[in-house]
Parts: sequence; C-alpha cells; structure tokens
Amino acid sequence: MPIKYVYFFSKDFTEGRKELKEKLGGKGANLAEMSSLGLPIPPGFTITTEVCDLFHKNDYVYPEGLEEEVEEKLGRLEKLMGRKLGAAENPLLVSVRSGAAVSMPGMMDTVLNLGINDKSVQGMAKLWGEWSAYDTYRRFIQMFGEVVLGIKHEKFEHILEQRKKKRNIENDVDLEVADLKEVVLQYKELVKKERREGFPQDPKVQLWKTIEAVLRSWNTYRAIKYREMNNIIGLMGTAVNIQAMVFGNLGDTSGSGVAFSRDAANGEKVFYGEYLVNAQGEDVVAGIRTPKPLSRLEAQSPAIYKKLNSYKDLLEQHYRDMQDLEFTIQEGKLFILQTRVGKRTAFAAIKVALDMVEEGLISKEEAVMRVAPDQLDQVLHPNIDPDEKYEVIGRGLPASPGAAVGEIVFTPEKAEELALSGRKVILVRKETSPEDIGGMDAAEGILTATGGLTSHAAVVARGMGKCCVCGCSDLIVNPGNTCTIGGQAYKEGDFITLNGGEGEVIPGKLTLIMPEISDDFEKFMHWVDQERTIGIRTNADTPKDSANARKFGAEGIGLCRTEHMFFDSERINTVREMILAKKKEERKKALNKLLPMQLEDFTGIFEAMDGFPVTIRLLDPPLHEFIPREDEELRELAADMGVDFGVLKAKAVQLREQNPMLGHRGCRLAITYPEIAEMQAEAIIRAALRVKQKGIKVFPEIMIPLIGTEKEFEFLRDVIIKKAEEVFRKEGDGVEYMVGTMIEIPRACLMADRVARHAEFFSFGTNDLTQMTFGYSRDDAGVFLPEYVEKGILPHNPFQVLDQEGVGQLIKIGIERGRKTRPDLKIGICGEHGGESSSVEFCCKIGMNYVSCSPYRVPIARLAAAQAAIKNKKNGRGIDPVL
Amino acid sequence: MPIKYVYFFSKDFTEGRKELKEKLGGKGANLAEMSSLGLPIPPGFTITTEVCDLFHKNDYVYPEGLEEEVEEKLGRLEKLMGRKLGAAENPLLVSVRSGAAVSMPGMMDTVLNLGINDKSVQGMAKLWGEWSAYDTYRRFIQMFGEVVLGIKHEKFEHILEQRKKKRNIENDVDLEVADLKEVVLQYKELVKKERREGFPQDPKVQLWKTIEAVLRSWNTYRAIKYREMNNIIGLMGTAVNIQAMVFGNLGDTSGSGVAFSRDAANGEKVFYGEYLVNAQGEDVVAGIRTPKPLSRLEAQSPAIYKKLNSYKDLLEQHYRDMQDLEFTIQEGKLFILQTRVGKRTAFAAIKVALDMVEEGLISKEEAVMRVAPDQLDQVLHPNIDPDEKYEVIGRGLPASPGAAVGEIVFTPEKAEELALSGRKVILVRKETSPEDIGGMDAAEGILTATGGLTSHAAVVARGMGKCCVCGCSDLIVNPGNTCTIGGQAYKEGDFITLNGGEGEVIPGKLTLIMPEISDDFEKFMHWVDQERTIGIRTNADTPKDSANARKFGAEGIGLCRTEHMFFDSERINTVREMILAKKKEERKKALNKLLPMQLEDFTGIFEAMDGFPVTIRLLDPPLHEFIPREDEELRELAADMGVDFGVLKAKAVQLREQNPMLGHRGCRLAITYPEIAEMQAEAIIRAALRVKQKGIKVFPEIMIPLIGTEKEFEFLRDVIIKKAEEVFRKEGDGVEYMVGTMIEIPRACLMADRVARHAEFFSFGTNDLTQMTFGYSRDDAGVFLPEYVEKGILPHNPFQVLDQEGVGQLIKIGIERGRKTRPDLKIGICGEHGGESSSVEFCCKIGMNYVSCSPYRVPIARLAAAQAAIKNKKNGRGIDPVL
Repeated sequence: MPIKYVYFFSKDFTEGRKELKEKLGGKGANLAEMSSLGLPIPPGFTITTEVCDLFHKNDYVYPEGLEEEVEEKLGRLEKLMGRKLGAAENPLLVSVRSGAAVSMPGMMDTVLNLGINDKSVQGMAKLWGEWSAYDTYRRFIQMFGEVVLGIKHEKFEHILEQRKKKRNIENDVDLEVADLKEVVLQYKELVKKERREGFPQDPKVQLWKTIEAVLRSWNTYRAIKYREMNNIIGLMGTAVNIQAMVFGNLGDTSGSGVAFSRDAANGEKVFYGEYLVNAQGEDVVAGIRTPKPLSRLEAQSPAIYKKLNSYKDLLEQHYRDMQDLEFTIQEGKLFILQTRVGKRTAFAAIKVALDMVEEGLISKEEAVMRVAPDQLDQVLHPNIDPDEKYEVIGRGLPASPGAAVGEIVFTPEKAEELALSGRKVILVRKETSPEDIGGMDAAEGILTATGGLTSHAAVVARGMGKCCVCGCSDLIVNPGNTCTIGGQAYKEGDFITLNGGEGEVIPGKLTLIMPEISDDFEKFMHWVDQERTIGIRTNADTPKDSANARKFGAEGIGLCRTEHMFFDSERINTVREMILAKKKEERKKALNKLLPMQLEDFTGIFEAMDGFPVTIRLLDPPLHEFIPREDEELRELAADMGVDFGVLKAKAVQLREQNPMLGHRGCRLAITYPEIAEMQAEAIIRAALRVKQKGIKVFPEIMIPLIGTEKEFEFLRDVIIKKAEEVFRKEGDGVEYMVGTMIEIPRACLMADRVARHAEFFSFGTNDLTQMTFGYSRDDAGVFLPEYVEKGILPHNPFQVLDQEGVGQLIKIGIERGRKTRPDLKIGICGEHGGESSSVEFCCKIGMNYVSCSPYRVPIARLAAAQAAIKNKKNGRGIDPVL
Repeated sequence: MPIKYVYFFSKDFTEGRKELKEKLGGKGANLAEMSSLGLPIPPGFTITTEVCDLFHKNDYVYPEGLEEEVEEKLGRLEKLMGRKLGAAENPLLVSVRSGAAVSMPGMMDTVLNLGINDKSVQGMAKLWGEWSAYDTYRRFIQMFGEVVLGIKHEKFEHILEQRKKKRNIENDVDLEVADLKEVVLQYKELVKKERREGFPQDPKVQLWKTIEAVLRSWNTYRAIKYREMNNIIGLMGTAVNIQAMVFGNLGDTSGSGVAFSRDAANGEKVFYGEYLVNAQGEDVVAGIRTPKPLSRLEAQSPAIYKKLNSYKDLLEQHYRDMQDLEFTIQEGKLFILQTRVGKRTAFAAIKVALDMVEEGLISKEEAVMRVAPDQLDQVLHPNIDPDEKYEVIGRGLPASPGAAVGEIVFTPEKAEELALSGRKVILVRKETSPEDIGGMDAAEGILTATGGLTSHAAVVARGMGKCCVCGCSDLIVNPGNTCTIGGQAYKEGDFITLNGGEGEVIPGKLTLIMPEISDDFEKFMHWVDQERTIGIRTNADTPKDSANARKFGAEGIGLCRTEHMFFDSERINTVREMILAKKKEERKKALNKLLPMQLEDFTGIFEAMDGFPVTIRLLDPPLHEFIPREDEELRELAADMGVDFGVLKAKAVQLREQNPMLGHRGCRLAITYPEIAEMQAEAIIRAALRVKQKGIKVFPEIMIPLIGTEKEFEFLRDVIIKKAEEVFRKEGDGVEYMVGTMIEIPRACLMADRVARHAEFFSFGTNDLTQMTFGYSRDDAGVFLPEYVEKGILPHNPFQVLDQEGVGQLIKIGIERGRKTRPDLKIGICGEHGGESSSVEFCCKIGMNYVSCSPYRVPIARLAAAQAAIKNKKNGRGIDPVL
C-alpha cells in the first residue's frame, strides 16, 4: 500500500483524528476532530508532516504520488463545495495554512484566499458583490506576494496607505470598489516589477507555489531558532492545511474573531474574546482595527453568540482543557476555523487546573501536569506589567528571572549606600565578584557585561531570587561611573528597567506587577508534593536564604557553600592572614579566629533547617580569589594588614593560576592544608552539638569537594572523623553526621565504586562536571556557546540544560558504580541544573534521592519532580505536560 | 597446616628456591638457590615477606607461631654450625639482612655480627684472637646502636676518630687490641647515655630487636619514597635473612669484596671487582679504605680467585644474566654471601644482551626484555661524565633528558645571537612561550622557573631532543638579566650545567660525554622491531624534526602541530592581521597570505616522510596566544602593524580568557572561523598533490582537535571535504586522504560511537584528556602534584605516566565504541604518554594501531612496544623486563 500523504476532513468524510497530531499537526488534527464532532468546519484536507520531512531530505522534491493525491482531494473538495478552484463561475477559494504538532505561533507561513485571479474575481463578485471580491483579491495578492514571492510587506502597505490618504479615509473597509480595483492593479504591477514575471493567474500554480513556501517555512532561521529556544525537538515538520475559504469580509453580517474558553490572564471561567465585523481573521491578529469584545456579539447576534458558546463548551469538554478558538461568520453563518489548547499565564494555569479538577473534568494528576514548571517563575518574581510597551536597548542572558527598576549604580558600595536611604538601584558591573555580595543584595537587579549563566552574578542573583541580566555585550562599563548601553550613554542615577526572564535592558522606569503567593498556588503545590517521589533541597549559604527556601518548600540544604562566608568584610582579612601564613602554626592561629565565626554561621543555618539535613561543602575556591588583583588594592591591603607590599605582591603572584578552574582548589587545598578542613569540621560538629542541646533536630552532612581519587577522600574523611571524635570526647556528647563528596570531576564518576567505599553520600556538582566533560570554561564559553546552539551543534547551553547524552552518561556511571559498592548511597545533585525542569526529570529517572537548587527555583523543582513521577507512573499512557 | 614463615638454607637442607622470590626476597631466594647449587654459602634462614606484611597490618605484632619457628630454625643453625648464639664458648654470630623481592639498595636495614656480648667476645677471642673479637664487637655495637637504637652515626665515628687521632694512625686496622677494647667501652657508655638502658647483652634480645628494626625499615619515609620513584608496587614487604657470620676481619688471609660478571659500564665480558683485606663487607661499600682490584686477588691468591671465577661462571649460566656477587674470605676460605642481577648502563645492557644471545645463553626475545626502555635515554643524549663530582644548586623537573653546558642567557634573542657566534648558551626563563622557539632551538639547554612536565618548555625541548629542567622553584629570574639559583646570584654569561635526566642545576662547566649510536644499538633495535606489533610515529612540526625522527625509526607523523608554524617571526604578524580582521573578507585576505607559507611547510614535511602517513592537526591554541600580553609590546606591535593601540588593546582584552585551557580553541575556533580550517585544508591538499606529482608517496591525515560532539566533527569534516574536492577539481588530480579527530575531551570518549560515524581515525590526545578527566591544569597542578605523589594519593604524576585506572577507562570506552561503529578505525595516541614505557604497554594492550612521541623518544617507544608484544605473547610464561 502506498504511503498516505493527504487526509481529508468534512462533516461526512473525515480521515484524521486528534490522536494523529504528529502526522497532521495540531491544526490539522483538530480540524479533523472537530469535523467528526459535527462542528461547522469548512471542509478541506491536510498534507502530512511526513511530506515536509521528505521534501527537505530530498532537496525540495515532493515525494512521489503527492501531486496525484492532492489533485484527488482537491477534486473531492470542489465537488463537495460545488465550486471550482479559480473558476470564472462559482469559484472555490482556499486557505493554505501551516501547522506543526507543537504550536509555533507566527513562525511559519499561511496564505488565505488562494484561487482568486482576474477571472474568478468576477465569479466571486457575482456571488458576494464587487467590494468583497476585490477586497479579497487585494488581500490574496499581498499575502501571496509577501509569503511566496518574498516581496516586502511595506511595499504593499505603501500602496494601500497612499490610496487611503488620497481618499482621506482611515480604515480599509471604507475604501470604495474603485479604490480596491486600483489597489489590485497597483499590486499586480508591484509584483511584476519586483519579480519580473507577473502575478500568477493559474490557481494550480498559486497552490503549488504556496505549498512549497509553507513547507520551506519550516526551516527558516526564525523557525529553527524558535524550536531551539523552546526545546521543540523530534518533529517531522509542518503539515499543510488546505481548506475551503469562508469569508468574514462580506459586509456587516460577516466577521472574524478569536475566543478563549477561560481568562488566559487569571484563569477565571469566563467566555471572552474579540471580533471584527466585515474582516478576515488576519485583521484581528494584525490589529488593523480595534476589535470588539465578544459581549457585543452577544448583544447584537445572540443566536450566533449562543451557538459559539455551546461550541466552546463542547470543545472544552471534549479536549478537557481550556480552548482558544478562531471563528468566522459568513453572512450570518458561524464557522469554526481552529481550536487549540489556550496559552495562559502561570496564574491562569494554576486556577484552570484547580477549577477543572473541581468540575470533574480532569484528575489531580492531570492538573499537576497542566502547569509548565518553568512558568512558575512568573508566580515568584515581579514582572513587567503586560500592558507596558517598551524599547529594548540591550540584550544579555536571562540569568535570573523577574523584573527590576532602579537607578544605575556602578559600585556595590554605592548600591548599599543608596539602598539604605530607600532608593532602588540596579547594580551595573563588567562582572561581579564575591566581594560585591553586599551591593548585589542591596540592589533591585544586576546587569553585567560579561559572564554566562553560571557566572558569579547569575548564581548569586538566582540564589537571592533577584533579577539579573548578565553577559550583555551591548553594555560597556566605562571608568568614571558611566556606561553605554546599545550605543547610548548612561550615568549614575539614570533609571533603567531589567527583564531578567528575557535578558532585556530597557531605558527608564516601567510599571512592575508583584505577584503574591495565593491560596491557589498553595493548594496546587500541595497536590504537586503528593505526586513527587524525590526530595527537593536548596542551595543556601545563610540562615536568611535557608528560611526563605523553607517557605518555598525546601526539605533541607543540598549545598551550603562555606566560601561565601569567608568574603564577609569583617572576616576576609582574617582569611587573608590564614593565606599569607608562612607556617602551619601561624595558619592555625588565623584559623582559630575564624572558628567561632564559622560556628555562628552553621548554628544559624542548622536552626533555620530544624528537622532537615544540611550538606555543608568544605572550602572550595582557589586561595587567590581572596586576594585582590590590582597593585593599588594590594598596596592598601598591605597597609591594612601591616605586611610588606612586596611580600604580599609576591604571594599574590605565586597564587595566581593560568586555569584556576583546574587549579589548586577543592579537596586539593584541604590536602595541602588539612588544618582548614579541621577547623571547618570542628565548627560544623560544635554547631551541631550546640543546636542539638537546644532541642533542634540536626543532620549535618559534611561534603568534600572536587574529589577525583579514592585516596583524596580517604585522607580527608580521616581528618574530619578524627576531629569530630576529638570534639565528641571533649564535649562528652555526640551527634549523627555523614561524610560524603561532591562528584564533579569525570574521574570521580569513573572511580565511584572506590570512592563509595568511604563516602556516605554523593552530590553531583554538574556545573564543574559539565565544564570538564565538555572541556568548556563557564567563564569563557560564552564566546562560542551561543553560536554552537545557533548552528545546531548543541541543542542547548549545557550549563543551563543538563547534557543527558554526555554528562548524563557519567552521572549514570557514577550512580551505578557508587550504589554497587554501597546500595544505600544517598545521591543528589547540587549544580545549577537542579532547578531546571528537564534536568530534574532526568535526575528522577536515574534514581537520585533529591535535587537541590536555589531557593526561588524550589517550587519549579518540586513541580518538575512531580511531573517526572507521574510520567514514570503512567509510562505508556501518554500523559505529557501541555504548553 | 599452619603457614610457614621461615625457610632454612644450607648445603644439605634448603627449603627455598629462586622462584620463591616474592616470599623470600631476592637475597633470600638466591641464598637458597645458591645453597642448592652447592656453592659455599654460610647457612641460615629467611623470614618471609609475608611476616613483614602481617607485622605492619597488625600494628607491629608478630604473627602467631613466628617466634617458635625462628627458635627452631636458630636451633638447627646452631646445631649445624656447632656453635651457640652469644655463648661464652664457641659463640655463633649471625648477620640479619633485609631483602625485598625487588632490589632497593641501601634503603632498608642490615645488622652484622649479632650475638656478640661481653661473654661471647671472650669465646670469639679464643677462636680467632682478641683483635678480631674486639674489632667485631665494636662493629656490632655501632651497627646495632645506629640501626636498632637510632643513635647517630657521627657519635660512634667521633669516638673511633678520637682514638685514631690519639694513636696517630689512619686506618681502623692499625688499632691495637687495647684501643679496640677502649672503643668498645666508650661505645657501651655512649649507648647507655643515649638510651638510658645499657647495650643489651642478651643475644635473643639483640636478635628480636634487630628483626623488628629490619621489618620496620620497610616503611621508612626513604623506603616508601624509593618505591614510589622507581614504581615498585605490589610487594608484601622485606624478608629478613639470618645467616651465620663468616668473618673477613680475621687478619691478612681474610677479606671481603664485590665482583661483577661483566663490565657494568660498557658490558664487556670481563670479570672485575674490588676487595679489601681484613675487612667486613660493609667496609668495601662504605669506602673507608680504598679497595683493591680483583686482579690483585688473582695475583696473590690464584686458587681463591679461580674458585671465585668458576662460581661466577656457574651463577651466570644458572641465572642466565650478568651477576653482581658479594664474597668473604675467612682465613683463606671463600664464601659467597649474595648474588643478584647486576645493574648496568644502557650501553652495557645492550652489549650484554647481544653477547648473551651469541653465547646461546638467552633468546633474542629475552634480549629484548633485558633493556629497560627508559634507559635508552642515556644512549641518545649527552650525559655528564660519571667521573664528575658536583654540587647541585637547584632542582626542577626532569623535563627533557641529557645534559647541557653553557652561558646563561635570559632572552631568546640573545640565545640566537650568541649561538650564531658559536657560543653555547643555556636559556633561562621564568617560562617559555611559542615566541621563544628560535632561542630554544639555539640554546644547548633550557631552564625554567615554572611549568610542569607538559609545559611549553618541556614539550618543545623533548621534541628537539634538547636538555630541559623546568619548574625549578629554586630559580628566580629577576628583571635586568640576572637571576638567583638556590639563593646565589647569576648573571648573563655565567656558566651552568643542566642535568635534564635528574632535573639538576649545577654551577660551572662539567665535562659531558656524547654517546654515539653504535652498531650494537642498531642491531638491538632491529631485534626490537621484529617483536613489535604496533606502529611508532613521531610528533614533529618541521621537516628537520621529521627527518630526525625517521633516523630514530619513526614510521610516520602522529601529530604535526600547525600552530608552531604560525609563530615564525616572518609570519606572526600576518597571523595577527588575521586575528584582528573585523570581517570575514579581511580575515580571508590575511589567510590567503598564510596559504603559500603553510603549503611550503606541508610540502617539506611530506617530503621528509615519503612513504609514511602524516597526521596534521588543524590550528589548536586560543587566538590570544598570538597576541602579546604587556602594554609595551602591544604598543610596539600596534606601531608595527599600523593599527591603533586602543583597538589592539581592546581586542587583546576581549580575547583573554579566565581558563584558556577550556576556552575558545581547537575545533571551536574553526567553527567560528571556518575559513581558517579551509585555508589549512587547502594547503595540506595542495602540498600533497604537489609532492605526489614529484613521485613521493604521501598519506595526509587531517586531524580536527578538541572534538566533544558529533556535530562539531561533522560540520568541520564537511568544510574540509568541500575544500579538498574544490582543489581536486581545479587541479584535475586527486590524492587519498583521511579526516579524523583528536580524542581529548572526556565527552568525545563517551560519544565515540557517534563521532566514528564520520571520523576515519582517532588519535588520543592524552595531555588534554588527563587534564579534563582529573580536572588538573598542567600549568598549575605543579603546586600540588608532587605532594600528591609524596602522600601516596597518586602513584605518579599522571601527565608523565598515563592514569590507566581513570583516564585509561575513558580511552578504552572510546576505542570500544569507536570500533563498534567503524571496525577498521585507525587509533593512536599523540599525547606525551606516547613515549612513556608503561603507557606504551597499555596502548598496545588495548589495541591501538600506533603510538606517537617526540623524535628522541621513538627508540624508547619502539622498545616498550616490543616488550609489550612479548609479554602479551608469553602471557603466563612470566618473562618480565629486568632492572
């Protein structure tokens, strides 16, 4: 049997159904489904996505048999309609629309009114009058000219505008027949001028050229980009829907509109939408005239409204989800042209899901699947008022979501100063460093010129739940507290707005809207947690972050980075004393000063995490990070510390590294200076004993970073255990604790069976693991990664979305080997991926016990984990998250 | 049956044999073997290495049953000798000697004359006179005092020296009995003073304390260090040999000596050695008196000499290798105390192996196993005359072997200048960079303050076969052309000597000896190649290196780095033009200038490698390597190139990277600028066509570096193939070529099945692979790697010796998956490990087709590969390389 490339749909004979979405695209499948349901759908046929696939594979040649099949289906359509494509009498006009299995709004091409020409326009005039006929003709020439022939939109618009100006009218509908005829004439001339050949009169030529254009539109730059950005993979292509035209432009009893079955902004169960009288569907979308609300339709044509409302109910019941309809009224008769699952805000998504469970339409499980995890960002951060229109002057990476408005400041000190006096500031830096933390905390948002999604600015901002745009190459920070953004000069005190979710920099102050955590959200997240099978922890370094994360549902700390504590301005000089110490004894003296400070740190965090485990990572960064780089700063520091500048400079130079990411850091530091690990272990254990005595439930997990060999772990575990036992002996009391490791070096994954002989838990540090598995420096890869994604060499930035193929293999090897040695090995992830939904799903699938992410991503991780659990449970029953 | 811990040996009853070396140690096994052969061996017994293992495992407790077994064997010995340990009449004295399965000369402890005390010294005096008795007594107190009680050598020596001074004599043998008695008295007082308890009189106490000391000496710092340095692993411990003493110190008819069955320096078949009259064996080694050559023994006691000679022959025949004997003559009677395989120079090793094959003693295969691959370095480089005594003022890493003498220079320009006028120079730099190549080539040797074994200096020096000491932390290079080495100041023009094989810096000019490639060497290497099963290629970037490598037996180029060609002073500015180009067109213009230069490069290399394949790697380093770092140099360059300093500086800053090793380099560069790859591909293909037309056999293999994903390779392979086909079309001629990849990113190993869909060969770049698998930067790891090896966290520096456990796993995964997709995939290695013998063995074992290394290591790789093939063939027959 030959392959079937074309599927017909009509009231009485329909070959498709909604389950064939992969093949017919969303639009085609729904047209078939609605036809079968008996809704008033103009008949037509759908060319499958497979044709698109073959067309591109075979250098733009149609698969054999396609043309015959289209001819046959077209014949059936003509017969059914009693009209003929492009005929002088009773002409048939069709729409040709793209439509892939996943909605890509506006990305691919569509042509309406195909089949009209110098002959058939007469036939149409006979049916519906000259005005409608020529209005339709000029529409078709323009659309075909733009989409198929590639003539610029402005050139057509210019002709139309000139005409309207001449006639001194504002709306297209006010043009006279003579005007329209003149426009058609000029359009045809334009085509001839631009493309040598005249506008094609043969309707078959029109049809096949349009089909080709639609198929080609699958692989335009913007379409490929859109799929990448939205992680749309594995599709065959677009389907092509060829459907008899119905006309909304036949006068005042005609019109076109769109309608939503519920409010897409807040989810309320109200039927609302917009329509335009005497217009085709494209006019509504293009915003040529201001459409009227559906309530006006209800008032003017209650019967039509009632019908539309009943179709809406039918479709919502049938599809069991909120619908987004397109309809056309042709001389008082209602047609449905499209239905699809309606896009909605996170607020609406939650409300609709909750309501539909109450209405008995869907189960709680389905409700959980109905909200996209990444959408929750909207619920947790302030956002730009959707009514704001704005200009973007700079684009960077969407490092931390939400929006922020404030005065530009260039130093963290200034940020703190102005914030103290109640002013809102945006910290603008080339890049941030750990010393900037105070200023970052004080600022509303952070904008940097360099650095990627896992740069210091990005990581810290996400941890703080603060809006951040980083790696903005349109930004140049000048000396003397000025900058240029997109070529324009800005100075301290100028207002800008950041849109962290999109990576946009906007001049001036926009209105932001602050979301609140609603009862609906709480209820929804409660259902989410019922489905979830793995734990969600947070990455938090302070009691404040910890408390915040608990509010968002964190069940412990998966990564407490102790180095951030060392950068505190009151401590850093003690840290530097420790670094500059020439002998172990001197170093111990400095460490002894740090001990009570760390003790306080850990006590506060344990208190905030009462009842939950806390994973504390020993000091990780190379020591040079604690020493200033510039001579001037070094000179100041030398004076401060009372040491010789030369000595300090020499030490600073000695510590500097060519590739600090691969240098003397993590456990390597602790092996050289075990006394640092000893001090930290002592502080952790003492803090644990202290809070235990206050009745707090404490579960410290001491984590050794950057392990690559069994012996490293063994060596440091011994150091820690010895110190812990010493403290227990001295205090006459003990506490349960674990010693485990961060798995972030490829070799550690390969040697996981050996490391697990000694390690009680693994936490995958996927930031470093990604760096080393790919050989990409997070700080430098920004130069080529965007290009890599653009050229399709990588599907995503692997620092954002876990590379399951490569890095994931190493993680699987690590888990498998680790559990082989120690079946009850506790395993988690604490890289940035722990808050990214597809990565969370992967972590669930491969058997991790928990994921850990920044506080503001905890709800996202909870939802992603719940959806993964449901998918896992339903495997084969095909429940997929929508949107 | 209880475990047997003690093995007896004597003429009539011997429990051991040479095959039990693991258990009895080399010395014990050979004593047993020689006893069975009927040689005059003083009887005794050996405590097994297993006891040592258990002793250390069980916190220094002897295994159960050991004491009884020792008592029993001691009883048997006393009975056999007709003497009793420490008895007043007819006392038995014993030696207690360490001895592991692998010789560790001088590393562990030995005590002679045990059993003597205030009583038995009388009995001994009755047997052999008072002089010998008290001479023996003072020897024992000293040795026991030093080895077992830990009293400083100098304290005993001081007493003896004072005595000799007082009596105004020079040699110990000239002391009178009264002197010896006085010395014994003072020694005993010294022991009492130092250790509270007096010198133990009970011979059993002496014995067990000594056994314990010998066992403990297995794990002293120096012993552990020695094993690490010599890669001695998997041993259980030392055996303890307790043997009846024979005395060389009984007067003029007694003596002790050592003898070699062949000349250890040149391998000639001559019997030679040294002996001392009236002395114990330790005196010969300690160099207290100057020993006499064996020829003197022949003259004085021809019968004894004859016997010794015949024993030597017997042992050489029996052991089928050159022997190193220890003997003692007690009142005219000859005893053999030890035999072992003699250590020898590379020259001697080759000569002995060749001779023994001719003598029918060993097979050719065995001959090949008789030379340690790393030893060949001696044969290929000049070395310091072994007669030179010298002081070492600085130590660094033994980066490239051989020795060099020359005047210090601090800049490559000066090096070239002086070398041109015929002066020999040593280039002393903080570190070298690609721009220094000319100066490095001009210098005799290179000394750097920083950088590891795979630093630029090291890699380039090895490639040139030039002596190099790098990472010498004793060196500080000052501005203004001076430096300090080990605290002493040096200036330009001062002479130093480098010993690259040991990493030593020596003041002044030492005499060097130049080895020549001898006929013996040629013959030996011919046998080597007969055994070898994999190919040996070289890493070479110039026709000169290529020609050189062919002389050493290279069968092609495994890695031709094209970036070195770019640093040529005549080209680098064109390279910089290319880098600074703002548009593709400008860049292409600069590339067009480079094309003819590259064409010449490749033509020369192809000519030099006529008949052999040449793997050419596309440009690898990040572009900032081609731009100077300092403002001053940038300013000069800007003037030179006629560009604005600001523009140049901005570009330089923009190109700089935080972690260049993980940055925009390798294939990532070529993906951003495909025109660079195009130019290189064109140059390669054109050069190949050109030499082909001259009748040269050319096999170009184009290698894409730093691949981490399938798509990267696919993208660039397409660029290369397109370009090659274009050239073929234009030239109307074609040539066979391959496109493959360097596998040096962990992810590439994991995705090898996919990469092999397109790649025709893999070359493992184990330098980078080691960096990323461990997360160590070659440039920075020098800070902690030595400590890691010292603390036993790593067995070796993994940049020197391939980490088979971790990195090796990834290589195996890469090979397995690559060959799964493409069974005939050609696979090699081109990292520094390709010239390291244990790594070469690994490469053979896992099925690589070839290894590639620097020209001067080609013979080493050939030998290592041959030995690996033999081992593989004989698997189970136990032929192992000696030495």
